[in-house]
Amino acid sequence: MTRILLLGAGRSASSLIRYLLQHAPTENWHLTIGDVNPAFLQDILAPHAAYARAVAFEIADAPLLDTLVSNADIVISMLPALFHPIIAKACVHHGRHLATASYVSPEIRAFDAEAQAAGITLLMECGLDPGLDHMSAMQVIDDIRAQGGRLTSFKSYCGGLMAPDSEGENPWKYKFTWNPRNVVLAGQSTAKYLEQGQLRYIPYQHLFARTEQLQVPGYGAFDGYANRDSLSYRQPYGLDDIRTILRGTLRRPGYCAAWHALVQLGLTDDQVHLGNSADMPWQDLVAAYLPAAATAGTLAERCAAYLGLEVQGPEMSRLNWLGIFGEEPVGLSDATPAQLLELLLTKKWVLQPQDHDMIVMQHLFEYELEGQPRWHTSSLVVLGDDAVHTAMAKTVGLPLGMAVRRLAQGQVAHPGVVIPTHADIYEPILAELAADYGIRFVEEAGAGQMVAAISQ
Amino acid sequence: MTRILLLGAGRSASSLIRYLLQHAPTENWHLTIGDVNPAFLQDILAPHAAYARAVAFEIADAPLLDTLVSNADIVISMLPALFHPIIAKACVHHGRHLATASYVSPEIRAFDAEAQAAGITLLMECGLDPGLDHMSAMQVIDDIRAQGGRLTSFKSYCGGLMAPDSEGENPWKYKFTWNPRNVVLAGQSTAKYLEQGQLRYIPYQHLFARTEQLQVPGYGAFDGYANRDSLSYRQPYGLDDIRTILRGTLRRPGYCAAWHALVQLGLTDDQVHLGNSADMPWQDLVAAYLPAAATAGTLAERCAAYLGLEVQGPEMSRLNWLGIFGEEPVGLSDATPAQLLELLLTKKWVLQPQDHDMIVMQHLFEYELEGQPRWHTSSLVVLGDDAVHTAMAKTVGLPLGMAVRRLAQGQVAHPGVVIPTHADIYEPILAELAADYGIRFVEEAGAGQMVAAISQ
Repeated sequence: MTRILLLGAGRSASSLIRYLLQHAPTENWHLTIGDVNPAFLQDILAPHAAYARAVAFEIADAPLLDTLVSNADIVISMLPALFHPIIAKACVHHGRHLATASYVSPEIRAFDAEAQAAGITLLMECGLDPGLDHMSAMQVIDDIRAQGGRLTSFKSYCGGLMAPDSEGENPWKYKFTWNPRNVVLAGQSTAKYLEQGQLRYIPYQHLFARTEQLQVPGYGAFDGYANRDSLSYRQPYGLDDIRTILRGTLRRPGYCAAWHALVQLGLTDDQVHLGNSADMPWQDLVAAYLPAAATAGTLAERCAAYLGLEVQGPEMSRLNWLGIFGEEPVGLSDATPAQLLELLLTKKWVLQPQDHDMIVMQHLFEYELEGQPRWHTSSLVVLGDDAVHTAMAKTVGLPLGMAVRRLAQGQVAHPGVVIPTHADIYEPILAELAADYGIRFVEEAGAGQMVAAISQ
Repeated sequence: MTRILLLGAGRSASSLIRYLLQHAPTENWHLTIGDVNPAFLQDILAPHAAYARAVAFEIADAPLLDTLVSNADIVISMLPALFHPIIAKACVHHGRHLATASYVSPEIRAFDAEAQAAGITLLMECGLDPGLDHMSAMQVIDDIRAQGGRLTSFKSYCGGLMAPDSEGENPWKYKFTWNPRNVVLAGQSTAKYLEQGQLRYIPYQHLFARTEQLQVPGYGAFDGYANRDSLSYRQPYGLDDIRTILRGTLRRPGYCAAWHALVQLGLTDDQVHLGNSADMPWQDLVAAYLPAAATAGTLAERCAAYLGLEVQGPEMSRLNWLGIFGEEPVGLSDATPAQLLELLLTKKWVLQPQDHDMIVMQHLFEYELEGQPRWHTSSLVVLGDDAVHTAMAKTVGLPLGMAVRRLAQGQVAHPGVVIPTHADIYEPILAELAADYGIRFVEEAGAGQMVAAISQ
C-alpha cells in the first residue's frame, strides 16, 4: 500500500482528486486529503471510503502537519507556493516524497542536498505551466538532439483562455479562469529574453504593445506577450548557447493592444492609493487620468485622442465594453487603480456555469540539422469539460497525478529537487495524457526558417 | 541656559551648526552634537569649546540616546526621517522639545496627544521643503484672507538646481545636490492634484511629459513636474475648498523632456535585476531596450526613431551627452536599470568644488477679492556660498535653527506635533531670513487671472 497525502483541495485540485480516486483501488493507494474546509469533500469521497478520507488541515497547525506527513509515503501540495518550504521541510525530515505544480523557489532549492541524502524526491513544476510545458518541450528538444540537430531558437507560449463556444459577445474573448489579481498585474516587471543572440528587455509600459502573433492549428490566431524572465529557462533545458529564447503568454488578438491602452492610461498601477470614494463613477476616474480638456468632445473621444487611437477602433471598443466611460461606481474607497480595475473585470469577465475554458500552449523551435535550417512547432489545445473539470484543472492536476503515480511505482530515479525535464519522467506522463485523455500536441515541422517577428 | 542636542551632523547640517554656534553665546545655549563620526567636528567646535561639544552617537545605542535627551532641553534631529519616531519617543518620555526638517509621518503624528500632555512641541517640517515652503505660502495665504480674499488656486514649486555660473556645458543644467537615488526614482508613483475642481492623476509614464513652464524673476524659465500628492496640502493650509492645488518640482527647461525619454526607454526602472555583467557597455544596454532592428542606422538613430524624437533634437542631445550610446561599461553586475543610471549620473552630474548650487521656489496664487480675480506670485532664489554652505544647507538649516531659537525663547506656544503654518512661528523666521541672510521672496501681484496651463 502507498499512502498519499494531498494538502489543499481547492478548485484547481478537482481533476487531480478524480485521478487519484480513480487509480487508488488498482494502484493500492490510501488517500488522505487535508483541507481547511473538508466538509465539501464528504460527498466526493463517500463512494471511496475504503481508501480515501478527508481531514481538517491548516498549515499553521505544525503538529498536525508533522503527523500527516509522517503517516504518508508521498505528499502532494496544492497549497499556495509560499507554504511549500514548510511542507518540504517536513518531507525531508520524515523521508517522504513531495510533488507540487509550483516553481522551484530558492527556499525549495536549498533542500536539494538534504533530499538527496534522505533518498527522496521533491518533484516540483509538475502541473501545466510549469509542468506540461517542460515535458512537451523537452520531448522535442531531446528528439532534435538525438537526431544530431542543434537548436537555434525556442519560443514557448501558454494561455488560459475561453473555448470558442464560450467567448460570446465579449470583445476581449477573455474571462478569469485564474487569480484575477495576477491577470491585472501581469507583466509589471521588465521582460527579459534573447533574440538572435541579442539581449532584449521590454519595460512594462511597452510590453503589451510589443507582441507576436501565432497561429494554432484549428483555433486561429493568438497574440503572445513576453513573460518576465525567459533567460532562466536556458539552464534547465540545456540551451545555454541558444540564440533566441522567449517565453510568453497568449491572448486572443486585440486583447493586448486594448490592455496596453489601460496601461497607458495608468489604470493598472497598484502603487498609488487614490483617496477616492467608493461611489466615484468610472467616467470620473478616467477623466482624472486625462490632461485638462484641451479638446472638446465626449470622454471617450478625448481618451482616444490622448492615446492616439480611433474612437471607433478595436481598442476603444474594448474599453467602452468594460464601462469605464460610464456612470458605474468604482466600488472601493481609497483604492489603487489596479484594485478598481480588478473589481470591474471580475464583474465583466465572470465565468458562467455553462462556460468552457481552454488552455492553449505552443512551442516554436528552430534548429540546424546537417547544416540546414529546420523548424518544428508543437501546439496543444485542451478544452474544459465543465465548470469543475476545467481545462485549467485538468492540465494542472493530471500531469501532477501521473507524476505521483510514477513516484508511487518507484519509477522516478532522481533524488533531490527535480523538475520533469527527464525523459523517464515526461515520456510516460505524455503517453498517458494522450492515450487516456486525448491531451496531445499537434506537431508540425519543415525545412527552412520559420517566419516570426515581434511586431512593435 | 538652554541645552540643545543636535543629532546628526552630515553635510546638510553645516549651516545649521554655524547658526547654532553663532548664537550660542548671546542666547546662552549649550550645544551637544552627536554624530557617528564626531572627529571631523573637533576643528569646527574648537573655538566654541565653552558652549559646544561633540559626542560619538549611534541611533542603535538606546541608553546613550536616553542619556543625551534627558540632559537636553531641545533636541534637533538631522538624522534620516525613519529614526525620528525613536527620538520623538525619548523626547516625549523626558519632556523635551524636538525640531526636525522632516515630514510628519503617521508614527510621529501618533505622538501628538502624548506631546500635548507633556507640554512639549514636536516641531516638524522646519527645513526648506518641507519648511520654508509652508512658512512663505502661509504668509501670503493669511494675508489674502486678512484682506477678505478667497483663494481659488495654489501652485507651489521647488527645485534644488545649479547656479547659472555653474551650469557649464552640461545640457541638463543639473548636478546632484541631493540623494542621487531619490532623483533617479523621482515620481515613480502616480501624481495627484486638483485643477479647476477636477481631480487629476498623472501616472509615471506620462509625468515628465506633462510639465508646466514657469518664469522666475531674474532667473528665466523653469519646467515643473507634479509631485506625488498635492491634495494632502489642503488640510494643513486650510484650503479644503480650493479648486486648484498642485505641488511640483523645478528643473531647467529640457530636463523633463529628456528624462521622459529615459523613462520611456525603461532605464529608470528599479524593479528588475538585469542579470547583466559589470563590463556590459552602455550601448548594449540601450540596444537591449530597443525592438529588433527593423530600421537601419546608428544606435542613436534607432533610439530616436523608437521614441519619436529628432536625432539632433534637445532630448537626444542630452541622452548622448550622458554617454548611453557609447562603450563605457555600466559598472555593476546584475543591477536594476535605475542603479546603473544612478551610477552613470553620479559621474556626469558630479558637483565640482567651485560649483554653486541654487534653490528656487515659486508659489502661484489666484484668489477673488471683492468679486474680482487677482493673482500673486512669490519667488525665491538662494545661491550657495561655497561647497560647504550650499543653498541646500542654508535653506534647510537656517529655518530649522531659527525655529529652535524661538523654541528656546519660549515663543512657540503650540504643544503637540506642529508644523510652521502658524504666523507666530513663521513671521519671525521669515523676518530673520530676510534681514540677516537676504533670503527673501520676490512678490508680484496683479488683477485678473494668471495664465498657466499644464502643457501636454
